[in-house]
Formats: sequence, C-alpha cells, structure tokens
Amino acid sequence: MADPTDRSRTPPDPAPAQADGDHHVVIVGGGFGGLAVAQELGSVAGLRVTLLDRRNHHLFQPLLYQVATAVLSPGEVAEPIRRIVSRHRNIRVLLAEVNGVDRAERQVRLRDGGAIAYDTLVLATGATHSYFGHADWARHAPGLKTLDDARAIRARVLLAFERAERTSDPAERERLTTFAVVGGGPTGVEMAGAIAGLSRQALARDFRAVDPTRARILLIEAAPRILGTFPEHLSAYATKALERLGVTVMTLSPVEAIDEVGVTVKGSRIPAATMVWGAGVQASPAGQWLGVATERGGHIRVGPDLAVEGLSDVYALGDVAMARAEDGSALPGLAQVAHQQGHYLGKALRARLVAGQRPAPFRFRSRGNLAVIGRNSAVVQWDRVSLKGFPAWLVWGIAHVYLLVGFQNRLVVTLRWLWAYVTYQRGARLISEREEAAAARHQQA
Amino acid sequence: MADPTDRSRTPPDPAPAQADGDHHVVIVGGGFGGLAVAQELGSVAGLRVTLLDRRNHHLFQPLLYQVATAVLSPGEVAEPIRRIVSRHRNIRVLLAEVNGVDRAERQVRLRDGGAIAYDTLVLATGATHSYFGHADWARHAPGLKTLDDARAIRARVLLAFERAERTSDPAERERLTTFAVVGGGPTGVEMAGAIAGLSRQALARDFRAVDPTRARILLIEAAPRILGTFPEHLSAYATKALERLGVTVMTLSPVEAIDEVGVTVKGSRIPAATMVWGAGVQASPAGQWLGVATERGGHIRVGPDLAVEGLSDVYALGDVAMARAEDGSALPGLAQVAHQQGHYLGKALRARLVAGQRPAPFRFRSRGNLAVIGRNSAVVQWDRVSLKGFPAWLVWGIAHVYLLVGFQNRLVVTLRWLWAYVTYQRGARLISEREEAAAARHQQA
Repeated sequence: MADPTDRSRTPPDPAPAQADGDHHVVIVGGGFGGLAVAQELGSVAGLRVTLLDRRNHHLFQPLLYQVATAVLSPGEVAEPIRRIVSRHRNIRVLLAEVNGVDRAERQVRLRDGGAIAYDTLVLATGATHSYFGHADWARHAPGLKTLDDARAIRARVLLAFERAERTSDPAERERLTTFAVVGGGPTGVEMAGAIAGLSRQALARDFRAVDPTRARILLIEAAPRILGTFPEHLSAYATKALERLGVTVMTLSPVEAIDEVGVTVKGSRIPAATMVWGAGVQASPAGQWLGVATERGGHIRVGPDLAVEGLSDVYALGDVAMARAEDGSALPGLAQVAHQQGHYLGKALRARLVAGQRPAPFRFRSRGNLAVIGRNSAVVQWDRVSLKGFPAWLVWGIAHVYLLVGFQNRLVVTLRWLWAYVTYQRGARLISEREEAAAARHQQA
Repeated sequence: MADPTDRSRTPPDPAPAQADGDHHVVIVGGGFGGLAVAQELGSVAGLRVTLLDRRNHHLFQPLLYQVATAVLSPGEVAEPIRRIVSRHRNIRVLLAEVNGVDRAERQVRLRDGGAIAYDTLVLATGATHSYFGHADWARHAPGLKTLDDARAIRARVLLAFERAERTSDPAERERLTTFAVVGGGPTGVEMAGAIAGLSRQALARDFRAVDPTRARILLIEAAPRILGTFPEHLSAYATKALERLGVTVMTLSPVEAIDEVGVTVKGSRIPAATMVWGAGVQASPAGQWLGVATERGGHIRVGPDLAVEGLSDVYALGDVAMARAEDGSALPGLAQVAHQQGHYLGKALRARLVAGQRPAPFRFRSRGNLAVIGRNSAVVQWDRVSLKGFPAWLVWGIAHVYLLVGFQNRLVVTLRWLWAYVTYQRGARLISEREEAAAARHQQA
C-alpha cells in the first residue's frame, strides 16, 4: 500500500469521473446490491460510475440489532461508501437523495433540485417498514433499518429501565419493564433474544429499585410459528431457546393496535413502554419513480438479467426488486440475494457495455438461512443440512464477522464479542440527551 | 469474578440504598469529580449515596475531540455510570436533571418535578460554554462538551466536504472547505490539528471534484499566542507544528461576529461553513441554585475543605467550583483537578461522617499540562520539565489510554489509534440522517 501522505499530496484528478465520452452508469443505493455493482465496475476503462446514496455509509444490516441492544457501536457496523470505492478513480460517490426518474430525459431527479443524467440506471434502493396501513404505529414501535433507528431503539430500551428505577408506581414499573417485539422473523427473534440478554445479564446488577432480570419480553407473531421460513423443528427449537432466555413467545397473535402505552393482541391489552417492529417490509418507492407496474409491496418486476420489465437501460436488484428463480418462485429479501445480484449485474454490465457480449441469466445460489437467538444459540439451514445451538451460533458468528466490510470493523467486532461473551457486559450502553428527549416523548404513560 | 449469570439470578437488594438510618450523601454530576467522590464512598457502612446525572454515562472529555473528528466512536469515550459503581450496593444512580436546591428543606429539586432529600450535598455539575454574551453564536459554532456536540460537529465537518463535492460554485466550495476553530487553548489546538489530519490524510483520496488536502483550517485566538497556559517556547512549537499540518494560526484576532455563512475577525469577513467554539467556558448554574455569591463565570467559592463558603453541608468541586491553592492562585479547570478533588472529598467525608475526624485541607498536585497537536506532535509541561514532539505525543497517548474508564475502552481505543497511525484512516466517519438534517440547517449559504 502506498504511503497515504504521498497520496494526499497528489491532487485528485476529476477527469476520469468526468470524461463524457464514457458510458455513464448511475447506481442509486449503496447497500449490498448497489455496492457490489459499483465494485465490479470499478476501474473499468470506458465506464464512469456515479453511486448515489442519501447516507454517507454502507450499513451492515444483519448486525444492526446488536447496535439497538448496546453490543456494538454504530461505527462498527457501518463503513463510509467513499472509502470502500475510493481506489476506483472512475467511481464518483455523491451524498444525495433521489426522488424521481425522468425516463425520457434519462436522468434521476434529486430531492434538493438538480438532476443527474445516466446512460444506464441501476436501482438498488432497498426496502422500508410496512405497518400494514397503520402509519401511526411507526411512532410507537420503530423498525430497525438505519443507524438512527438502532440508536432510537437502544435509547428507548435503556431509558425504560432508567425510568422504572425512578417510578414508585408498581403498575408503571411493570409497563416500563415490558418489551414487545412484533414479528417472529429473524429480526424479531434476534431483537427479543438480545433484549433478554441485555436485561438478564448486562443490566442485572446495575439497578436498585427494579430487577432487570424480571423484565417481560414478548415476541408477538401472527402466524402459527416463529421463523416461518425455517423447518418446523428449528422453529420449535428457537421457541424453546427463547423461552429459556425468558422471552414469552406468542404465536397466532395478530397485533390489533399499538399506541404510546402499549399493544393490543387478540382483544387483550398489554401495557408496554418499549415496542419494536419487525413484522412487515415494503419496497422503496423506486417503482413509482419509473411508473412501472409493481408487485404487491411495491417490488419492481425484473427479468432474468435483472433489467426492469419493459425497459432496456434500467436495472433493479435487492429488496426493491422482485426476481424469480428458475422454478418461478420469488427470491427472498436477503442480503445474500442482493449481494449476488450486485456482483452478477456488475459483471453483466461489463460484458454488455465493454465487451458487447450477451450475459447469461442470474442464478441465485443459497448460502443458507441463519438466525441467532442468543448466547450459544442459533439456527442454520442450508439445503437439507440444518444446525442448531452452539455449532449454529459459531457458524453464524464467523460468517458475520467475515462478511463485515472493513478489516478494522472485523477486528473490533470480534473483540467486542469476545468481551461480551466473557463478561456478559455490553460495550455501548449510551443514551444521548437528544435520543433521551425523543424516546421520552413516546414512553409517557 | 463471580459468574454473572448466578449474580443475575439474585434479585437486587434495595435495602442498603434505602436504609433511612444511614447518612445520605447526594452527588450531582457523574463527571471526573462526582464519580471519584462516589467511588470513595462506595460500600462504606453507615453511608448511602445517590448519584444524579442527566446523562446515563460518564464522559471522558479529553478525547471528545477525537469523536468530533471521526477517530473514535462515542461508545469508546463513555461508560455507563451505573456500571462503574454497580458493585457498591449503597450507591444508587438516577438519571435525572437537577434544576434547584432547597437549602431549608435540604433537598435537590428535579426538573421533572420530584425532589430528593440529602444530609450532605456534593455539587459536581461542571461547566458549559460561554459565548461572551453572544448566545446566538452557539447555533453556528457549537462547542464540545457532550456526545451530541461531538456527533453534531463530526456531521458538520464530514457534510461540508460532501456538499463541496456536489457544488459547482467555486466560491461556495471554498466556503464549504473552510473550517474556523475559535479559541487557541488545548481544545482549539486539538480540534484544528485533528481536522487537518482528517482532511489532509483520511479524506485525501475519497473525493473527485474537491481536494480535501486544500481545505482551509483556521485557528482563531484573541491573545498574542495560542496555549497561553504553556511556556512561550511550547506555544511557538505548537504554532509551527500546526502550520506544518496546514492550519493557519491567527493570533491577536478577536472574533467580532459569527453567523451561518462565516466569521468576522478584525473587521474582515471569513466565509466558513463549519465553525467550532473552543473559546470560553462558564460554570453550570449550581451557584444560582444555592443562592450564594459566585466568582466571575458563575464559579462557586469553596474553602480548603471544598465546602461551599458559608455552608456546612454543601460541597462543590471541579469546573463548577473556584478553589484556591495555598498561594491564593485559582486552580485551573482541568480534569485532574476535579479528579483529585473528588477523591479528596470522598475520603474527607468518610473521615468526617463515619470516623468523626477533621480532615486536612485539599492540596492539588499537578500531573502536568498536556496538549496534543497531531500525529507525533504534542506539548507536555510538568514543573520545570517540558517535552515536545514525538516524546510528548507518546506521553500524551499513554496517559490518556491509562486514564480511560473501562478496560474494554482502553483496548479498543488503543486498537483504533494503532490502526489510524498505520493507515492514516479514521474509524468513525458517520453521518446519520438526523445529524445531516441538523447540520444542513446551519451550513446553508
């Protein structure tokens, strides 16, 4: 690696990213999919790339729940997009929010005015939460998609115990130490398990008037079982493992109402100060930008080459797209799908735009289905192979450290995990004043 | 160390912290001073302690500038107050903001209503920024006291470059890449040096349209020299070292105006998008709570035993207090002063309240005066000994890692520093959407 001080003395050369003769690929979204496309197109002669994201960082979503539960710090699951691609002089990264596409003019519209022309457009804008038409629930039961979400949930969880320590009303104390996680998918299972670990272990000795080990943690699922995408015996194992951690697993329990003081399930009212939403997702509005027909949930229909149906110069991938396997089944909304699609599309665009070849269709190769429950406990399913308990947990941990972007993050996360494992402590139990004020607004009885 | 899981099964025993026969010491503020007092009184029979802070964490102020410049993450310079003292069953920690003292009733008033009775009161509420009567400057030139401050400044610095990358107006690009640090004390010097390191090294290669290595960094000081509390030859060295880093040091330059688009110095206007305030501090309003006469800056006058002048059951220490050395000189507003006063006062209260002894007066022993400028460059002054350059930098680094609370933080900070030293990179270059929105409001031209 060259000495950065020398590097720093060479003024950056904007030419490559500006050379207007080059074919201009505009990528919207720096998640797993968009980033992989950019990396495949990096330093390719004849191509210039503009990568747009409304955040300055690539976020490692799969570990976001550990930020929300004070195991990791935000900086440990995020990496500046610029740095990841900075060695590719033909890639320009812009912090900007896209809010429209002009197909006739071939340009993306930016929220703050301005527009950027493209020759080829790649939409990797991901998904957001769906509250099934109850937008007002979002205030009370935030979901987990951004660092702000994670910080907000962390502040609510920690603040609930702080307030429980101060209240003299037993009913209110009960409400403050009740945590309702809605949705029994991997996210919900991970959140419920992590909140249990936080209260049963990390916080166990730190309070005087309240006993965190007696906190009520509810995992609320409408379907007959949690982890519905896993085999039944793994769902059963996960349920048992969660209950051992002190989580109450409620299946066949559709949520009917959520407000500031609690949640209503099957007609019965559950007072809870902290609620987390892990139930539904919907695609970001990129489909509307294009004005194309979308699947239920707003997912953009794409062909086997990930081109948007009916368009030749616009591609979509990851959570915003609906791609189908050879057997016609819809591909799941997983990081590994977006990641594989991104690398495929990057290579395909290279072949098409530079070599003039016609690439083969995309094929998804499952790397397996993972969900972690807690300390020494996870489920892994890969083809006919399924693991649970400690071995699954080990596989999960190794896979996630390996997949983290940035060697420094891998090192620090490994360190934090070893530390947490040995001491049962959490490294990032912070409430900032701004977060406290925001959280307090939603936890008032 | 006992197995925390076993610990977690024993319900906490509120009795010790509740036993009303015990003498109740209420400490307001979990900084260096207040925390030291609590630690000295921990597990002392016959005493119960309530430690109040409006934040849930003890903050290691001396490294906060590294959070503001993306070297460290917030979690790495903060530790939950509860955890620090959790092994002492006679200490109760409450997250609460004090906004008054009722001396007649002997209780502190809490902002959210409620009050807490004390037998002995210790005020360790610290200091805040002083804008010399220009409260409106605070919006445009935030100071560096809390994690929110550090995150806000980090977002502004990083966002300034992001916006410079997008603008097509050369004058605006110039303004966006101009950083004005007001105040040539250790904080200002550290901030200016760290912003220089960030722009000259960490960001050097990451942009296309803007050259971060050409950013203008101004250190603006009203006095004839920076680091006025250090010997002249160290000020001179610091000035040279900063200039080598690319910082423009402006002395004899009182600031006349600050608004959203820049700063006015000696009648001349300097367009700058990012301004940081390191000029003045004032004591928190604890003096007004007591209704006692205070020194200029609101500092509470205390005697040699740190008792508030004229009061026998109220003590004050650290930045909120004005203590004097034997020679009558005022003690400086340093962490080491607060820290030593805290341990002294804790021991003194133990002697007085438990053993009924009369403790000797407080004596400050200087551990030396340190300021870091940048990579391999710092100044240290201790008695007649003074160091500069690499040896001083090494002393500074070792001292600060050693003083950090929490072994995990020491480990991670050491790791981050080694990493930054070798790679010239910064580990925490994050802008969250909320911070972006807030920063954008103040950087508009």
